[in-house]
Amino acid sequence: MITALAGGVGAARLLEGLVQVVPPDEVTAIVNTGDDFVIHGLYVCPDLDTVTYTLAGVQNRAAGWGLADEHWMVMESLERYGAPTWFRLGDRDLATHLYRTGMLASGVPLSSVTASIARAWGLRSHLLPMSDDAVRTRITLDESASSEEAGCDVAFQDYFVRLAHSVPVSGVRFDGASQATPAPGVIESLETADRIVICPSNPIVSIGPVLAVPGIQHILESRRDSVVAISPIIAGAALKGPADRMMAQLGHEASAVGVARIYAPLAATLYIDEADRDEAARVEAAGMRCVVVPAVMSTPAHAARLAEACLR
Amino acid sequence: MITALAGGVGAARLLEGLVQVVPPDEVTAIVNTGDDFVIHGLYVCPDLDTVTYTLAGVQNRAAGWGLADEHWMVMESLERYGAPTWFRLGDRDLATHLYRTGMLASGVPLSSVTASIARAWGLRSHLLPMSDDAVRTRITLDESASSEEAGCDVAFQDYFVRLAHSVPVSGVRFDGASQATPAPGVIESLETADRIVICPSNPIVSIGPVLAVPGIQHILESRRDSVVAISPIIAGAALKGPADRMMAQLGHEASAVGVARIYAPLAATLYIDEADRDEAARVEAAGMRCVVVPAVMSTPAHAARLAEACLR
Repeated sequence: MITALAGGVGAARLLEGLVQVVPPDEVTAIVNTGDDFVIHGLYVCPDLDTVTYTLAGVQNRAAGWGLADEHWMVMESLERYGAPTWFRLGDRDLATHLYRTGMLASGVPLSSVTASIARAWGLRSHLLPMSDDAVRTRITLDESASSEEAGCDVAFQDYFVRLAHSVPVSGVRFDGASQATPAPGVIESLETADRIVICPSNPIVSIGPVLAVPGIQHILESRRDSVVAISPIIAGAALKGPADRMMAQLGHEASAVGVARIYAPLAATLYIDEADRDEAARVEAAGMRCVVVPAVMSTPAHAARLAEACLR
Repeated sequence: MITALAGGVGAARLLEGLVQVVPPDEVTAIVNTGDDFVIHGLYVCPDLDTVTYTLAGVQNRAAGWGLADEHWMVMESLERYGAPTWFRLGDRDLATHLYRTGMLASGVPLSSVTASIARAWGLRSHLLPMSDDAVRTRITLDESASSEEAGCDVAFQDYFVRLAHSVPVSGVRFDGASQATPAPGVIESLETADRIVICPSNPIVSIGPVLAVPGIQHILESRRDSVVAISPIIAGAALKGPADRMMAQLGHEASAVGVARIYAPLAATLYIDEADRDEAARVEAAGMRCVVVPAVMSTPAHAARLAEACLR
């Protein structure tokens, strides 16, 4: 049994690899919900949906979010009303948000809705939101940001999508995390997993919220030898998203070594890319065993090879 | 200045006629919101939207609801989740519900959202929900109904759409009406209108909820001589919907005379169709002046002729 802590695209790709090398029903993903948000009254779970669609093989691989073969009639029609359309919701994707919003409104917890959605897409792996309670990642924009909102707090999607993660940040917090309870199955899957994998997601805003839910970090610390992490930073850069800049802006080294310093208390092993071979000694000095692998998941076959390496 | 009390299709057609014979900005419609409901977390206003789309000339004339040239990708995609799809929401129409739901969630009252939507469609007439407060029409299904829900209360759309208004009813009530306040502009438009027109809508479940909002019925009674109504029942039948059956089931005569008995306290004049010419004396006996006109609005030109007659 493998349990993975997951954010969005990077995690989805690794999971796509994992289910090729172990029976899919032996894989559980505990997914970040800190960047969930409500838009047009709809409850949207970007990371859960990215993982679901990727495991179902229906994701838009080029965009890194949403469904392939998508249609845009609703968004196009929203423009008439001058409604915000910076967060693009495709017509097929919207069905997911409508279904989820309707179910949540009728009192079904997010974990149950997530399981229904996964089942509807034929997934055999187990997808768990980190919590059924609301945890909201808030980003403080740096005073130097060339934005009217400099110095202000914004919701994660405002930073990530609306501001195209192109402004410097000075802080991150996870509202509601300290009062949140892990979703049903989260603790059990972490306690019983043969291996716990921290996917190559942003350590601060993708894995950070998961670890902020009381109880989760503690289990990882107590099972440290069974926990492996994959660096999302390769040659000093994130393959996608702002992890490198964000780490630097928040005082971390934007490198595999910086990742190792974050994960060292809770994971024994860090997998880094061949491009970072020269950093291996510094990773070990940061307190993690270091394994050098080809870590760029250009295709599902590359992802499978990386997954296989992580389970060795 | 003309103020109309409006339900759905019948009202929309009359309003389409009215704006051909008076300047559109001199027409105010006070629209039933008793059959508003929430589905998939979206706030849907069937009557407001029917009136808006009809006045914008973009309605699906054949269906009597929704937009012409509609697409159905979202509904089709919802089927994957086994979500209820008996209430059909087209892709273009969904934009209206998303916009409205988002605005309501951010605290904008329904009357302001309604005005924005009307403006976005280029309407020059004034559309007012009867109230910004929630009023919910509930239908009690008769014990004899061949439905598991016989004897139970259901929401209006459950009766109207899901059950295709094909089961007998034993009662109707408007939850929340007694605590509701007329929307801004409603009372003023009724007080200052040169003529108040009760559109040919279902007297019980379309006009009934409007009259149930405290203050509205009283103004009509006090201005009775300026109030005219158009019978939605022609030759004992509703052109669309269950008005005839519902009137009979609730103890009214399903005829123009039955309509006259309902409206006599608050409207001086009833317009009835030529097919009901022989009922004119009984309408007058019920206490309303009776005018016989061609009342079937097969085309916008027919609607304009009927509207013109009502203003004479």
